[in-house]
Amino acid sequence: MYEAIKNFNKQLSYQPEIENQENLIKKSGLVIVGMGGSNLAPGLLQIWKPNLNITIWRDYGLPDWTPEKLKDKLIVLSSYSGNTEETIDAFKTARERNLPMAVISTGGKLLSLAIENSVPYIKLPDTGIQPRSALGLSVKAFLKLMGEEGELEKINELAESLKPKDYEKDGKMLAEKVKNHIPVIYASKCNSSLAYGWKIKFNETGKIPAFYNVFPELNHNEMNGFDVKNANKALCNKFYFIFLKDKEDDPRILKRMEVLEKLYEQRGLRIEKLELGEGNVWRKIFSSLVLADWTAYYTALEYGLESEQVSMVEEFKKLIL
Amino acid sequence: MYEAIKNFNKQLSYQPEIENQENLIKKSGLVIVGMGGSNLAPGLLQIWKPNLNITIWRDYGLPDWTPEKLKDKLIVLSSYSGNTEETIDAFKTARERNLPMAVISTGGKLLSLAIENSVPYIKLPDTGIQPRSALGLSVKAFLKLMGEEGELEKINELAESLKPKDYEKDGKMLAEKVKNHIPVIYASKCNSSLAYGWKIKFNETGKIPAFYNVFPELNHNEMNGFDVKNANKALCNKFYFIFLKDKEDDPRILKRMEVLEKLYEQRGLRIEKLELGEGNVWRKIFSSLVLADWTAYYTALEYGLESEQVSMVEEFKKLIL
Repeated sequence: MYEAIKNFNKQLSYQPEIENQENLIKKSGLVIVGMGGSNLAPGLLQIWKPNLNITIWRDYGLPDWTPEKLKDKLIVLSSYSGNTEETIDAFKTARERNLPMAVISTGGKLLSLAIENSVPYIKLPDTGIQPRSALGLSVKAFLKLMGEEGELEKINELAESLKPKDYEKDGKMLAEKVKNHIPVIYASKCNSSLAYGWKIKFNETGKIPAFYNVFPELNHNEMNGFDVKNANKALCNKFYFIFLKDKEDDPRILKRMEVLEKLYEQRGLRIEKLELGEGNVWRKIFSSLVLADWTAYYTALEYGLESEQVSMVEEFKKLIL
Repeated sequence: MYEAIKNFNKQLSYQPEIENQENLIKKSGLVIVGMGGSNLAPGLLQIWKPNLNITIWRDYGLPDWTPEKLKDKLIVLSSYSGNTEETIDAFKTARERNLPMAVISTGGKLLSLAIENSVPYIKLPDTGIQPRSALGLSVKAFLKLMGEEGELEKINELAESLKPKDYEKDGKMLAEKVKNHIPVIYASKCNSSLAYGWKIKFNETGKIPAFYNVFPELNHNEMNGFDVKNANKALCNKFYFIFLKDKEDDPRILKRMEVLEKLYEQRGLRIEKLELGEGNVWRKIFSSLVLADWTAYYTALEYGLESEQVSMVEEFKKLIL
């Protein structure tokens, strides 16, 4: 895991190639099917371009839409391993209905299905890292499928200028602070996929419970659960709030964050404010994810737990067969 | 709060009426704007009919779509109080762009805006209850706007046959079990709005932290945070998992639930399995929400906290002005 984080920037020079490109059918919208880390990139793309016509699907099969609506979309099946049950099921559903498809994977059954069926695909390099660590590769593969050559160029430049080691110390310090607490990551709705990325890295790499939520919705319900009184103090005090603050967020959202920080602090809750980078949107996204990686990595170390493997997922997969 | 729960079934005989109906423009899809309890009903409608063409928007303004895509939708503004900042902002945005609209509210500024602008609206009866308690009224108002008279009839029948008191004892017992723990509610993706309803009732009525997640996504990340070892036991043991089980869920999802229950139990985690009602979908939905209401109500009592008011929201609203 240490090497995967330290070398994250190398992913950013990756040059994805589309096989069976002659069969790639351009559509006005995408339905992106995938689970966990394999379906995190689409939400990151929406931070870059909020009006992207993307539906993110994390389930078996496909959305229960009319045939007309589905036919108007490109179905993108994304599974890092290529052996994700839900995503393979979606491939078969799309195949039966003869819908336009594309596949992103390092191999496995999904890639075999793409090859057998002459479906356009991008074969990700299999460097032995975990899906949640491969977000540079994943983002670039999606941009390639979408024909966004300009953005691919911009990301290439970060391969040199983004230095993961620069974030290691901050991640280590944050892990020490959060130790013995349950992280809850807050962001604007626009940055919800970043907050979700932090959450799943704490779960999978750090091996601890963690949650996330977004402004302004959480102001209408979740925060009431943290209105600390003597009676609920023992529950509330177990949490550590990480606010992902973005100067490009709507000023009304930034005001909400400021006020909530104050209200939580007045109630004795622990909070950390992280300013996201300004300027280049890809630097903002990837630097925050690298910081999340280090924080989760050092969290596992703090607890003496293994950071790379997700043995419970492996155990689970065998039992559902 | 006690009376609001006990009398919940009376909401189900409510006969909504559309004012300015002559201005109601039928569209193939809805964008439903609202926050917290005022925007919970649309997700419940999707349990009844998963292929409803609905976009749920919980933010200021409107989705950042092309004018063509937006013009093809009916924008429904839902705010129980009528004074929700985000929803009023969305009304103004929709008005400026001359988009077809409808309003659902008990009053406040939003209802005034609807009247001033001859926008179709449904005025909910203001019985002094909280938005999260008014889901019977809210669901019926949405169905009325959608012209679903048949479903309105079916819900009418429940006004007599659904007896909230029948669920009180179970809710009280569950609150006693969950005491001193943080509830995490799990459901299938199809039933995610039910799980979310449970979560926000624990937050707002029970005044304690609570979270939710859905299958199959949580199998790919969240559950790894509950792979209990000596080192993280103190964090994991604070949680109490409530599984909402639905015989109508995909058998593969039911299998996943079963396996995870076993894995969590083997790790010493506390879980409660709740079977959702069969047959009538509205009974399934409303009976589960009533049970959530009682559980959250008795949770507040267990902690000696007030269940009705959300004083932190009121404090917050003043500070963001």
